[in-house]
Amino acid sequence: MINVLAIDAGGTSTRAVLLDSTGHCLGYGSAGGGNPISSGPERAAASILAAAEASSDAAGLPPTDVAHLLIAMAGMSVSGPTDWVSGPLAARGFPAAVTVASDLLAMFSSGTEQPNGYGMVAGTGAAGIRVRNGRVERTADGLGWLFGDAGSGYWIGHRVVAAAIASLDGRGEETALVALVLESAGIANSNGRGADGRPIALRDLVEALYRLRPVELSRFAPLAFEASTDAVARSIVDDAIVELTRLFSAISAPDLVGPLVVGGSIFTAQSLVSDGVTAALEEEGIAPEIRRVADGVVGAAVLALRDSGVTVDSEVFERIKSTLAHLR
Amino acid sequence: MINVLAIDAGGTSTRAVLLDSTGHCLGYGSAGGGNPISSGPERAAASILAAAEASSDAAGLPPTDVAHLLIAMAGMSVSGPTDWVSGPLAARGFPAAVTVASDLLAMFSSGTEQPNGYGMVAGTGAAGIRVRNGRVERTADGLGWLFGDAGSGYWIGHRVVAAAIASLDGRGEETALVALVLESAGIANSNGRGADGRPIALRDLVEALYRLRPVELSRFAPLAFEASTDAVARSIVDDAIVELTRLFSAISAPDLVGPLVVGGSIFTAQSLVSDGVTAALEEEGIAPEIRRVADGVVGAAVLALRDSGVTVDSEVFERIKSTLAHLR
Repeated sequence: MINVLAIDAGGTSTRAVLLDSTGHCLGYGSAGGGNPISSGPERAAASILAAAEASSDAAGLPPTDVAHLLIAMAGMSVSGPTDWVSGPLAARGFPAAVTVASDLLAMFSSGTEQPNGYGMVAGTGAAGIRVRNGRVERTADGLGWLFGDAGSGYWIGHRVVAAAIASLDGRGEETALVALVLESAGIANSNGRGADGRPIALRDLVEALYRLRPVELSRFAPLAFEASTDAVARSIVDDAIVELTRLFSAISAPDLVGPLVVGGSIFTAQSLVSDGVTAALEEEGIAPEIRRVADGVVGAAVLALRDSGVTVDSEVFERIKSTLAHLR
Repeated sequence: MINVLAIDAGGTSTRAVLLDSTGHCLGYGSAGGGNPISSGPERAAASILAAAEASSDAAGLPPTDVAHLLIAMAGMSVSGPTDWVSGPLAARGFPAAVTVASDLLAMFSSGTEQPNGYGMVAGTGAAGIRVRNGRVERTADGLGWLFGDAGSGYWIGHRVVAAAIASLDGRGEETALVALVLESAGIANSNGRGADGRPIALRDLVEALYRLRPVELSRFAPLAFEASTDAVARSIVDDAIVELTRLFSAISAPDLVGPLVVGGSIFTAQSLVSDGVTAALEEEGIAPEIRRVADGVVGAAVLALRDSGVTVDSEVFERIKSTLAHLR
């Protein structure tokens, strides 16, 4: 019997679980953002280490009892060197060898132990994968806020603020999003106009929004769902559903049958979007079984076990899920 | 008889004309970008000084013969302090007092000496003004690439690359823009796929595009016009026409009659867009007389003369245009 440590390192939070080779989870811990691109390698390594130590502390086991260590993280980080994180981990007694896996594959593997299927995530970004024989065969989108991530939280949030701005500017339709966006950005909704004839509220809003990093616009995405009776807001959500349906089309293959595992706040917080995608796929005569997952930590555990030579059957898979649920 | 110096300081180039109070242009000069926001104050001041000195050299007059100096530049620069440019100009003998005017008003005034009308520019960005009694009464858009500039070169260029990316990614329609964008970005159009199942050409393209500053995406705008028989490209141009028609709606007032002066490469290099906007406005029963102008230097001269107490009638206006045409 060996123990493995599985870490799901995301942009805003990091989750770690220590489990034995039967799939029994012994300790769980979490910390801040663990993505080296978005947080920087130093802060990301600190988050990963904090989550790892919290899980071994919770398990009551020293880091030296961990035989194998796997970190799931976003695509661009998978192929590069891992010294930035393996060094700090080894310095605290964790294994020096670190396996890095795709966060999308971990997310998929949180929803099923089957080797074939599809995974789609729509959080701040949006991406999809086709999984065959446990490996990523095709990837679509995840191309970042400027050129891709269609249907994501950024994508929706950007459209929400752009619709409010166009309306205030006299170029767009009237929409309930104006009041919601101004309130959310902390801007007074005055009717005054500046020397150039622009609404003062518009000038203040645009100045405030340019101070954000673009990806932070995802914080405005919930307003599209809040204003669900507003035609402009509803069309933004409908367009997101179209984009996410197209994302599935880009990853689907006629010969590959399996569940569609979805994750990320746009899918999991809003049934509107996953219901909309389901309905659109059914119209096209495609009806994959859709499973929602909160994150990729179960799947990271699945991948860590497989990586150590353990066969993850449905019994082991259910054990991971049920014993982890008790720890979280 | 006094001499005035009028400078049209744009993001990519700066134009200066020295003229007498009858509107007779005596010297013309040009230099690089003169916008303190996009080029930085030091480089912008150097460009403005270079254009100013070139115009006084061409006129064969010393800087001390200039009685009044006006610089037209983009909105955000109009209200701030002017030491960054007045200092270097005064050090070379130009007047220490600098009047700053709106570049949109200068562009409008390049097309007409009338006190009432409308101006719209669609170059890298897009903005519109309503002019009443020679002053800007209303401004719309010009809100920057992330939230506005709808129908601009950036806006079209961004859609062009996004359409090519979505097509390569399997999410979008097939389009002739794929080959054009790859060629323009210098990326080989191979059919190979990487380990994650993504087309290698897509990965290379996205990496190359993220190295650009977002506004530089405007360089891809001409591809939408080049691929004029492509449905995807055509719909991008049609959407730009819709946005620029909305821009006019945002600035128009029923009681204000006057010409619509349009400038910027999207209007002046492409008759497709100005014809499309004209047709859309005619459908709405609005038919302003549309005048295309190349830049704002004639208008800067008009504003500089008015600022010195000269009445610019049609005779003076025509004299500025014809004598400047001989110098350029």
